[in-house]
Amino acid sequence: MQLSTRNRLPGTITEVVKGEAAAKVTLQVGDNHLVALITRESADELGLEPGKQATALVKATDVMILTEGGDVA
Amino acid sequence: MQLSTRNRLPGTITEVVKGEAAAKVTLQVGDNHLVALITRESADELGLEPGKQATALVKATDVMILTEGGDVA
Amino acid sequence: MQLSTRNRLPGTITEVVKGEAAAKVTLQVGDNHLVALITRESADELGLEPGKQATALVKATDVMILTEGGDVA
Amino acid sequence: MQLSTRNRLPGTITEVVKGEAAAKVTLQVGDNHLVALITRESADELGLEPGKQATALVKATDVMILTEGGDVA
Amino acid sequence: MQLSTRNRLPGTITEVVKGEAAAKVTLQVGDNHLVALITRESADELGLEPGKQATALVKATDVMILTEGGDVA
Amino acid sequence: MQLSTRNRLPGTITEVVKGEAAAKVTLQVGDNHLVALITRESADELGLEPGKQATALVKATDVMILTEGGDVA
Repeated sequence: MQLSTRNRLPGTITEVVKGEAAAKVTLQVGDNHLVALITRESADELGLEPGKQATALVKATDVMILTEGGDVA
Repeated sequence: MQLSTRNRLPGTITEVVKGEAAAKVTLQVGDNHLVALITRESADELGLEPGKQATALVKATDVMILTEGGDVA
Repeated sequence: MQLSTRNRLPGTITEVVKGEAAAKVTLQVGDNHLVALITRESADELGLEPGKQATALVKATDVMILTEGGDVA
Repeated sequence: MQLSTRNRLPGTITEVVKGEAAAKVTLQVGDNHLVALITRESADELGLEPGKQATALVKATDVMILTEGGDVA
Repeated sequence: MQLSTRNRLPGTITEVVKGEAAAKVTLQVGDNHLVALITRESADELGLEPGKQATALVKATDVMILTEGGDVA
Repeated sequence: MQLSTRNRLPGTITEVVKGEAAAKVTLQVGDNHLVALITRESADELGLEPGKQATALVKATDVMILTEGGDVA
């Protein structure tokens, strides 16, 4: 399989919070925390739970850039 | 300023490719490469270029989760 | 009306799961299932329920491509 | 700070609906209502509540265009 | 037609920049500028050009919230 | 591999248009056309070209719902 999605950040799941329709999944990726909001259906089917290895994927069109200096402008 | 965006990955810009309307920006974030597709206008206004410090931001709704085991299913 | 959104997949709603803030809507589109995570407000206002005809819309910037062969790379 | 995100719409929060994982935030921006679906975690950390000033941010890749005339085509 | 997309901002197109694959469209919406990055194909088919009335649409899952006070945190 | 992304639409690539930073990829999926705007880098690395089998992936948070009846409201 080859996937066009450019960004892959391997880490470990640290928390899963499930609502009726949505679920919030938190991962530790190196020194950073990452948070994903996915369907609860996905969280259930993949058996996501703290301690499990997982990779965060992000499409390049969804990445923004923040630089230092001046106000948010 | 406080921003609802959950995911912030600080790094260094390694490449900027500019088209007419869009620009591709690559960052080194720890051991990972990240790629952003933004407007060329943004890349110009922020003065993005290799060697510049920058932080990649990603909204939690745009993060997907990949786990090991079996086929892509 | 003309909409810039490129992708329109007509189908039939098969399930609606409502949380407080979000709702998950499943459609049958030809041989494929599609899942949408929208606001509960939208699901209520549009009266979404199983059996109703509906079209799934997706912006081109939100479509990823997966091809066969080798590992996820 | 300089942010690549092109679209910033300052307004006032009029409603916050919190689920377990997600939260819906409504703002009044000039004559328009805007709705955001974010993590509940963000809504809690930013202390979002009706009457609070806030700015809606949208990445350019997430904006679609609708024009008049003919059918949705 | 009823669309689940919550956010609709009517305005006037002020600029269109076309690349090979993508196009950047700028609108004036009240006191705000909005920028959309769409396919060039869409920009061509809708005949987008300065002076044309158009409505920007944004899905609620793509709206972020920025509040005043302290650092970007 | 298991991926949280809910929506997978297998088809055949019918067109690839490459700009400097972005690429537009069109697929035939059953009776529907799908268009993806991805990085040119992805299009090159995956060797996308007309006639190649490929699957379009879409995150559930990026799917909108359109129903019949009345105005766009």
